[in-house]
Amino acid sequence: MFPHSIALLTDFGLADGYVGTIEGVIACINPQIRTIHLSHDIPPQNVAAASFCLANCYDYLPSRTVYLAIVDPEVGSSRRGIAVETDRGYLVAPDNGLLTGVLQKSPAIEAVELTNREYWRAPQPSSTFHGRDIFASVAAHLANGIPIELLGQSIDPDSLKKLELQKIETTTTGIKGSIQYIDRFGNLITNIPAKTIEGKSWCVRIKDSVISQVDTYSSLDRGSPLALISSSGWLEIAINSGSASSSLDLSWGDTIELIWI
Amino acid sequence: MFPHSIALLTDFGLADGYVGTIEGVIACINPQIRTIHLSHDIPPQNVAAASFCLANCYDYLPSRTVYLAIVDPEVGSSRRGIAVETDRGYLVAPDNGLLTGVLQKSPAIEAVELTNREYWRAPQPSSTFHGRDIFASVAAHLANGIPIELLGQSIDPDSLKKLELQKIETTTTGIKGSIQYIDRFGNLITNIPAKTIEGKSWCVRIKDSVISQVDTYSSLDRGSPLALISSSGWLEIAINSGSASSSLDLSWGDTIELIWI
Amino acid sequence: MFPHSIALLTDFGLADGYVGTIEGVIACINPQIRTIHLSHDIPPQNVAAASFCLANCYDYLPSRTVYLAIVDPEVGSSRRGIAVETDRGYLVAPDNGLLTGVLQKSPAIEAVELTNREYWRAPQPSSTFHGRDIFASVAAHLANGIPIELLGQSIDPDSLKKLELQKIETTTTGIKGSIQYIDRFGNLITNIPAKTIEGKSWCVRIKDSVISQVDTYSSLDRGSPLALISSSGWLEIAINSGSASSSLDLSWGDTIELIWI
Repeated sequence: MFPHSIALLTDFGLADGYVGTIEGVIACINPQIRTIHLSHDIPPQNVAAASFCLANCYDYLPSRTVYLAIVDPEVGSSRRGIAVETDRGYLVAPDNGLLTGVLQKSPAIEAVELTNREYWRAPQPSSTFHGRDIFASVAAHLANGIPIELLGQSIDPDSLKKLELQKIETTTTGIKGSIQYIDRFGNLITNIPAKTIEGKSWCVRIKDSVISQVDTYSSLDRGSPLALISSSGWLEIAINSGSASSSLDLSWGDTIELIWI
Repeated sequence: MFPHSIALLTDFGLADGYVGTIEGVIACINPQIRTIHLSHDIPPQNVAAASFCLANCYDYLPSRTVYLAIVDPEVGSSRRGIAVETDRGYLVAPDNGLLTGVLQKSPAIEAVELTNREYWRAPQPSSTFHGRDIFASVAAHLANGIPIELLGQSIDPDSLKKLELQKIETTTTGIKGSIQYIDRFGNLITNIPAKTIEGKSWCVRIKDSVISQVDTYSSLDRGSPLALISSSGWLEIAINSGSASSSLDLSWGDTIELIWI
Repeated sequence: MFPHSIALLTDFGLADGYVGTIEGVIACINPQIRTIHLSHDIPPQNVAAASFCLANCYDYLPSRTVYLAIVDPEVGSSRRGIAVETDRGYLVAPDNGLLTGVLQKSPAIEAVELTNREYWRAPQPSSTFHGRDIFASVAAHLANGIPIELLGQSIDPDSLKKLELQKIETTTTGIKGSIQYIDRFGNLITNIPAKTIEGKSWCVRIKDSVISQVDTYSSLDRGSPLALISSSGWLEIAINSGSASSSLDLSWGDTIELIWI
């Protein structure tokens, strides 16, 4: 059973034709495949944001999807290009930690380094756009049913680069965490997992304010800060019909504190 | 005859993977369906802008399209989720007025509240992302040919929430209206309908300036403000090769006046 | 053999539903065709940027693709609408120079002015949105196999409007060029072609700084300006993990100088 979809996630933006070029390379090899665009507006070169975003989407796509994920600040250096098989599909990416979040959910069954130039678009790739010259082509061939072993030399899944994510810290009164992602609405998604706090009573302290636990965005008046479980399974701080990031002046990596009550 | 397309309109933005997640849910249920992305950059929580934009697209899509429209500031509250059948297709949305513009063009034949959890993705949906857990799944099942009656309890189409749009006012010298939408070019689209002013002579007064009636953007020199009939059928104020919104310092809801001459 | 894809490039943005409307018009005529979105965020009315971006993508899409390219500041004026056949596919656009870059790569075999209203969506098109009322419909009919001759009156390919691009200048010490495109990463793409400088030794002088020639973005430390051959075949100035445009305070059209060493 072949994959029916290629899901793309990059930091290429949509303005410059880079994504269209990638899709063109795919269409040349596999004219029928469905493409699902997860995001192309990952903050430039932010591998951690890409890892987070990819892992959030991952549970909701069809089984056997090929994921093509490219945020690649070290393109052209000696970092490896890789393809990974999991129980749920295939992943094609630079080996820079971008797959950290997904592989926590779904461990690698097999991994190869993309050394077989036969499946590249250009045997002499440009030194700045491996997305076009290597990764897109490899993903399209996987979607065509080419076995992963043909794409290159087998590597130990344990050797894949992992991001070191900021850890949460248990204190006498609660949990210290940090903001790991800010979405388009200005919602602040922390690194405190839902399973640690579900069914318990708590509030959040940020600087000198205390923010109450609620069930949904509209539980408090418009403009009120609130804390809840995000749809992706983390403690989230938001504002009903507003931007928590702007209003609370908080950014990526900032510290927050949960207090048991 | 089944629908061939699902058309999506949201305020999710394209950065965070929310749209890709929605499309993943659809692809799990209906791997072949074509998706048409109308907009995902509706200003956050702006239900009126969503209603306007959806109604503008509506005349141009294939008959029997399923429209999945989600701008949902009250997600998780008691506002209803609905599916509506018209003579031209199906609409799936929160019941918050988002369908006002479309239903003016094409009245509801049948409406249901989305109470049948069998067609939800998650019988226990998250309280913040019904787009993923309810609406996308329901839209995909409709596109698969599931009859609308199976999706939940029938409701009176007259009970659907309608937006109260700003009305135009007829004066002794013309018409007072307001700006109901600003597009990416900074074009100001008013709430004065084309049919009221077509074939007549008029100008527009804004603050102390008078703006002339023309046929198209390039009728006047670059940088000149002008007034014409928009492609969506409203009085529009624009600037040849410029942004009327910035140059004239006008924003959503601001008043404008048409004067008969 | 019919085209399998329509590739779209516009300055419509993704917020206002204009692209979705275009895709709706196409889907009404050709429900099965694949659409590839190259860019919809060309800077408003910037025909030169559109020409550059289209030409970059052009080498990577399937043969016999129909390209629908619309950046159209003179919409509604007497500028012509055109369809052009090349050895690699079809081009549909306003005749304003937008096709300059593509036609340099792949000369016109045949060209017509879009005068046959039978293939328009609206025989009386709006004066501001020919993309919807003429171009999208014509592109979809071409993709359906309608011969280009049926779309209107044959015209001399030499009569198609061409952009006058800024030329490079050879000096006693090197080459004077200018910046022809800035991408989302802030990379500065000049008008000095790769073939003029490949395999030679040079540096770049901008204002009072000298920028070294390297192979790839990560060849120097993060934050260092560098010069290399872009993936699209031009001299490019970039900064490892940063924006050259912001850091060097350079913009579209600014002069740069390459010095042989």
